[in-house]
Amino acid sequence: MIVIMEQNATQEQIDAVAKKVESMGLKSSIIVGTERTVIAAIGDKRSDFKDSIESSPGVSGVTPISAPYKMASREVRPEPSRVNILDFSAGAGSVGFIAGPCSVESEEQLMSSARAVKAAGATGLRGGAFKPRTSPYSFQGMKEEGLKLLAAAREETGLAVFTEVMGTADVDLVASYADVLQVGARNMQNYRLLEAVGQSGKPVLLKRGASATMDEFLLAAEYILNEGNEHVMLCERGIRTFESHTRFTLPLASVPYLHRRTHLPVIIDPSHGTGHTYMVHDMSVAAVAAGADGIILEVHPDPPNALSDGYQSQTFDEFSRTMGRCKKVLAALQEDA
Amino acid sequence: MIVIMEQNATQEQIDAVAKKVESMGLKSSIIVGTERTVIAAIGDKRSDFKDSIESSPGVSGVTPISAPYKMASREVRPEPSRVNILDFSAGAGSVGFIAGPCSVESEEQLMSSARAVKAAGATGLRGGAFKPRTSPYSFQGMKEEGLKLLAAAREETGLAVFTEVMGTADVDLVASYADVLQVGARNMQNYRLLEAVGQSGKPVLLKRGASATMDEFLLAAEYILNEGNEHVMLCERGIRTFESHTRFTLPLASVPYLHRRTHLPVIIDPSHGTGHTYMVHDMSVAAVAAGADGIILEVHPDPPNALSDGYQSQTFDEFSRTMGRCKKVLAALQEDA
Amino acid sequence: MIVIMEQNATQEQIDAVAKKVESMGLKSSIIVGTERTVIAAIGDKRSDFKDSIESSPGVSGVTPISAPYKMASREVRPEPSRVNILDFSAGAGSVGFIAGPCSVESEEQLMSSARAVKAAGATGLRGGAFKPRTSPYSFQGMKEEGLKLLAAAREETGLAVFTEVMGTADVDLVASYADVLQVGARNMQNYRLLEAVGQSGKPVLLKRGASATMDEFLLAAEYILNEGNEHVMLCERGIRTFESHTRFTLPLASVPYLHRRTHLPVIIDPSHGTGHTYMVHDMSVAAVAAGADGIILEVHPDPPNALSDGYQSQTFDEFSRTMGRCKKVLAALQEDA
Amino acid sequence: MIVIMEQNATQEQIDAVAKKVESMGLKSSIIVGTERTVIAAIGDKRSDFKDSIESSPGVSGVTPISAPYKMASREVRPEPSRVNILDFSAGAGSVGFIAGPCSVESEEQLMSSARAVKAAGATGLRGGAFKPRTSPYSFQGMKEEGLKLLAAAREETGLAVFTEVMGTADVDLVASYADVLQVGARNMQNYRLLEAVGQSGKPVLLKRGASATMDEFLLAAEYILNEGNEHVMLCERGIRTFESHTRFTLPLASVPYLHRRTHLPVIIDPSHGTGHTYMVHDMSVAAVAAGADGIILEVHPDPPNALSDGYQSQTFDEFSRTMGRCKKVLAALQEDA
Repeated sequence: MIVIMEQNATQEQIDAVAKKVESMGLKSSIIVGTERTVIAAIGDKRSDFKDSIESSPGVSGVTPISAPYKMASREVRPEPSRVNILDFSAGAGSVGFIAGPCSVESEEQLMSSARAVKAAGATGLRGGAFKPRTSPYSFQGMKEEGLKLLAAAREETGLAVFTEVMGTADVDLVASYADVLQVGARNMQNYRLLEAVGQSGKPVLLKRGASATMDEFLLAAEYILNEGNEHVMLCERGIRTFESHTRFTLPLASVPYLHRRTHLPVIIDPSHGTGHTYMVHDMSVAAVAAGADGIILEVHPDPPNALSDGYQSQTFDEFSRTMGRCKKVLAALQEDA
Repeated sequence: MIVIMEQNATQEQIDAVAKKVESMGLKSSIIVGTERTVIAAIGDKRSDFKDSIESSPGVSGVTPISAPYKMASREVRPEPSRVNILDFSAGAGSVGFIAGPCSVESEEQLMSSARAVKAAGATGLRGGAFKPRTSPYSFQGMKEEGLKLLAAAREETGLAVFTEVMGTADVDLVASYADVLQVGARNMQNYRLLEAVGQSGKPVLLKRGASATMDEFLLAAEYILNEGNEHVMLCERGIRTFESHTRFTLPLASVPYLHRRTHLPVIIDPSHGTGHTYMVHDMSVAAVAAGADGIILEVHPDPPNALSDGYQSQTFDEFSRTMGRCKKVLAALQEDA
Repeated sequence: MIVIMEQNATQEQIDAVAKKVESMGLKSSIIVGTERTVIAAIGDKRSDFKDSIESSPGVSGVTPISAPYKMASREVRPEPSRVNILDFSAGAGSVGFIAGPCSVESEEQLMSSARAVKAAGATGLRGGAFKPRTSPYSFQGMKEEGLKLLAAAREETGLAVFTEVMGTADVDLVASYADVLQVGARNMQNYRLLEAVGQSGKPVLLKRGASATMDEFLLAAEYILNEGNEHVMLCERGIRTFESHTRFTLPLASVPYLHRRTHLPVIIDPSHGTGHTYMVHDMSVAAVAAGADGIILEVHPDPPNALSDGYQSQTFDEFSRTMGRCKKVLAALQEDA
Repeated sequence: MIVIMEQNATQEQIDAVAKKVESMGLKSSIIVGTERTVIAAIGDKRSDFKDSIESSPGVSGVTPISAPYKMASREVRPEPSRVNILDFSAGAGSVGFIAGPCSVESEEQLMSSARAVKAAGATGLRGGAFKPRTSPYSFQGMKEEGLKLLAAAREETGLAVFTEVMGTADVDLVASYADVLQVGARNMQNYRLLEAVGQSGKPVLLKRGASATMDEFLLAAEYILNEGNEHVMLCERGIRTFESHTRFTLPLASVPYLHRRTHLPVIIDPSHGTGHTYMVHDMSVAAVAAGADGIILEVHPDPPNALSDGYQSQTFDEFSRTMGRCKKVLAALQEDA
């Protein structure tokens, strides 16, 4: 932690900060510059000290040196993690393909989707049974009935089931049917839920909040890891910016950034990340080319009649074409590696 | 709802959309332009139709005409709402002043704060007992012990107690001590929590999410109203933008915007909205001048030693000066009205 | 400048950076932490060194300590500046009110506007003769004819004339008629234009670019100051964010921020900053309450028939009411100061 | 254009808007809904009418139907454009690779770079002779001397020369040496400059402004096309968002979006779009996979000693590896197409 003093800070203020740093169990080193004084606080404590120092008299600002997360950090665990469930595998060189409808709507809709995405090469099946909806008047999902259909689809196809859990009260129920618990973007900082999915021991797909910084994203993962659950996948699904021609702005540079900072697998969601079916193909291929450990796509037998997210869902044929191209690009990059 | 067709949409596609609109119980009106065709869907249904139409073949885009929220809307309830609890009053001409520490830390810290903000003219006391923290390693609050201290402070001062509830499992406990349940920005779209605080019947202070649109914000309020709880206050506490010299960007234009769309009272949070104590005073006076129905401020007996948010907390003296100026501006605007 | 090394930086890399720092005429101080090493570079040079250090092997990041601007800085000139032209005065306790039409459209439109805003208490007249328009097919302004009308309006009313200059080739012409040269948000980093208005010696109103950071804004002012022209006013007119219910997001916290960093006067533009007439009044009063050194407003005799920006222009009556309230708030704050 | 009236708009207001629409040479169609009235304005005029209607009494909002640009539009010119200069070719199936130093610094630096990027497969050479710099105290470029070196590099290597022009006064000079005039992001809405490069007749690489919407970007291109110059390439180089772990956020979804709206070639700039050398490789491969018509990269013989942008420049070896992978991905996608 580097403490930058105001230009007109007094010697008393400087000494008080240095003393405070030391009272926290850190070593302080005072550097007197030509314009201002800087105090380096040395040690391996990572905590709330920053706030306290920042509000001390004469302090202009504080720059942290260490990342605020530990277990998620590549500094703590240098080798990449891999999450394996059934045939699904993501991370450390494996690329997982998850696809399926936004919402589970009926047995026929789900089973046909599961068969189609399996045939095209997917290893994970997505489908929402509990749906977080912006409006209380929108379709809220089939709930337990939807979970049962997802489990049946796994029985038949062998696909690993990914589905969202919206509240702590539902964790046990969802965990009894699903292979991977998804925490949605809107709940990325719902700490009670993060603790609960952490305690469940089930693999978790954690979606980045629409305005979460990378530190906030990794600290949310840290809440899960901190409960002893190390099966966490990070999902970049786009951020909110001034752009309105896409539903969200999808920053693929998150892939190299996260690969450098964390050992956790990184999954890209081009469906929510663009919000328009016609963009999903190109962004899926690009995600794989950028080195993502997986992609998650919305696929529906009849998008115009989907109960949710039809405008960003692919048909079975479109998905099949996208899978084909992703595999070609993967092959080209692997032969070269 | 206005449906804009692609320039090269076929007559079949146009007819199919018109038919779909009618199957939803709406009347359709086809307008043939020189470049493209537009279909107006007329009726008072507000629901998921937009998504379904948007994903139909030949459709370029859909523009909603009606607001997606109802009970929060000024169209449904034209006169402004007021929330009254003890001496606290906000909305419909009343301006409420809520102040207190970020976290409840000790009896002495809380009681001295409550007395000081009461003396300066506040009518509400804020203080966190359950603290949502970005890092799992940060101070998480005094929990029930903190709630007891808040209740004791109310006993002595008569201030209405505002405190955050983080999860559905805590709603009953927090509601048994607090006067107003606060839903934090990170939980603005935690729909399970919105339903639970709605069912509690307690007044709610709902904070805007850092990247929530106004429609999303008002639909979150609608979740609470939809449970039969009409005591909802909206709190603008700043949005996430590219600006880094403030913790968030505080858009005071939310006040006139929300006053035009909704009858619910609008409270401004200049502490989180700026993140720097030295800006809080000016932004508080500006908030009152912009017509806010209240402000909520972090005040601490000794900010540099606060366990959280010291860098954006005012001292008792600073708060007293801010209150004085806010009252002067209010008086000047009221004599003129 | 603080150089933070990678955790696994080698001793050679650390030594190389220290040597580089010294070769730049700065003193280096190496601080060995428990996790990584930090190098402080001490001295008063402000330049491109940061980039060069940042790309050196083993460097994780660089934190500047000093502000990159000098002449605009309050560290260099602690007392606030004031700009005076005719009866207009802004800064160091004076608040300037600038009003008038977006575009000069005709003699009658401009003269009636000038008389009305003068009567209501404005001391500056705005009006565009050269109009930067997003589309090449939009009205581009009356050009020199418009400048002549502005000069005539000054003759009659004594108002100081503010008008935009769009290119270096027009600076002499515009400067021969106007009192203040306005540089628009789109040209904030048009460095050739900044140099030219700097050389003109005329007072300049520099608008913040829609996505400019504060450092970029102040460095743009520095380009003007660097030409020996110290009559610079900064204008906050809103930034581009994800919000779409306003044309731009208007961050009034720019007022206290800029007052702390720079001596230059700060003017707020609630017309562009909101993009909706109905919000202009509240945000004008709020701007004055926040401590702005002036406001600039679009006023038109007949907004629905304006050739540009009618949706954010006030009528004469609306402007008169806004002026009245701004003066009341100013009086209330001054008596208290 | 669809005009949405306020819910409480009077019949007079509705009639007045309809009359105004007709006075503009458009046909009006009034649709009376259950909650409000909507007026469709039909015709092929594209101009300032929107603003005027938007500020009329009783109007709630206006939704444009047609794109505001014409010549850039795919509706006007359905087949994709290609820009060819020497061996460089971009668009309509051709992918152009442009590389070279941020700034021209010396004969040796430029010539070695030109040879290296040519050897690796580039067909365009970038290099700044006039440098727009945030600070007036930074290196401003070698100016004409730099242009001469660029021309010499073209002589030897046959690479097409891309270089920035910062002001109207420099257009003739730069055009006499360069093959492609680059307009930087900061000048995207410098309309005088757009007109001047349009009149030059030279091919233009137009960079997207950091907060430009797609309509603004395409209307800036329209300024150039409107001067009779149809050799325009669009360059996505990242937008300003709340993310600070990258210099800008690079939205690759701009590729499919622009390909749908415009026939102009789309070039991606992963150097500025990320701001970190370690991300450039992955994002370059991803850009090609997303279907970009070209990429432009900063390459330097010795990045840590570059006079500008070293932190985002590749070495010769890194560039060579990136080119190899881009070509592999292109081959994989083309065999499949």
